Amino acid sequence: MPNIVHRIGIEGAAAERVYQAVATREGVASWWTENVNGESAVGSVLQFIFGKGGPAFQVLELTPPARVRWKCVAGPAEWIDTRIHFDISSQDGETVLLFKHCGWREEVEFMHHCSTQWACFLIGLKQLLESGKGRPYGPRFELISRWSR
Amino acid sequence: MPNIVHRIGIEGAAAERVYQAVATREGVASWWTENVNGESAVGSVLQFIFGKGGPAFQVLELTPPARVRWKCVAGPAEWIDTRIHFDISSQDGETVLLFKHCGWREEVEFMHHCSTQWACFLIGLKQLLESGKGRPYGPRFELISRWSR
Repeated sequence: MPNIVHRIGIEGAAAERVYQAVATREGVASWWTENVNGESAVGSVLQFIFGKGGPAFQVLELTPPARVRWKCVAGPAEWIDTRIHFDISSQDGETVLLFKHCGWREEVEFMHHCSTQWACFLIGLKQLLESGKGRPYGPRFELISRWSR
Repeated sequence: MPNIVHRIGIEGAAAERVYQAVATREGVASWWTENVNGESAVGSVLQFIFGKGGPAFQVLELTPPARVRWKCVAGPAEWIDTRIHFDISSQDGETVLLFKHCGWREEVEFMHHCSTQWACFLIGLKQLLESGKGRPYGPRFELISRWSR
C-alpha cells in the first residue's frame, strides 16, 4: 500500500524533546493544530480540529523517546485505518524524526496534497524546536494549496 | 514500487508559467539548483550540480503546458532509472503542480529524506512564482537535515 514518508533533522533538541512534541497533546498542538481534544495515552483517541472538523487517531504505542504510533479512526474516508508512525533517533549530531503516514489504499491526488502538507507541518516542527517559532494550523497558517474538502 | 508524491497550488501564475519553471533549464535553475548543465529537449540530458556532484536526467517528454517527464540516468544508486513526473492543471482558481518521483525500489530512509527535501524545493517554487523570491540550492540554502552522501 502507498505511504507518505518524510524525514527531518533537528539540531539542538534531544530525542526526549522531539518525543514530547509528538507524544503529548500539548506537543502536537504546538506544530500540527492548536485545537486538540482527548488524551495522549495508549488506547485513547486524540481529536484534531482544523476549522470545523478534522481527523481522530487512536494512540497505539508510546515508547519514549523513540516511537509513537497512531491509527486513524475518523476523518477523511481515505485516511480511515491508515496509520501514523513517528520514529526518533540520534544521527550525525542531530535528532532525526522519521515520519510515515502508511496504508493508503490508492495513490490519489489527495495523497499528493497530504504529503506536501505534512512536510509543511514537519518543517514547522523543526523550526519550533530549533528557534521556538511554531506555526501550527490556526488563523495565520498558510496552506500549500486551496484544496478543501 | 514506492513513489514520492507532492502537490502545490500556485496563485497568480498561469499554467504556461509553471510549465516554463519545470520545462526549461533556466526554470529549474530558479528553484532546484542554480547550477544546471545540458539542454532541456526530449532525448537530451540535464545535469544538476549540488556542491561537487548531482543527478542527471534524460528528458523523456515535454508537453506544454501540461506535462514534463524525466528519467534518472546518473546520481545516487537509489535514483537510477527512477522517473520524475510534473503534471500541471488549473483547479479552484489556481495552477496545480502534481509532482511524482516514482519507481523507487525500496522505501529506504534516503527516500524519506528526499521526500521532505523535494517538498522544500517545491514550496520554494511556489514562493518564487507567487512572490518572486526563489531559494534554489546555493550558498544560502537550508537543508532539511544533515543527510549527506
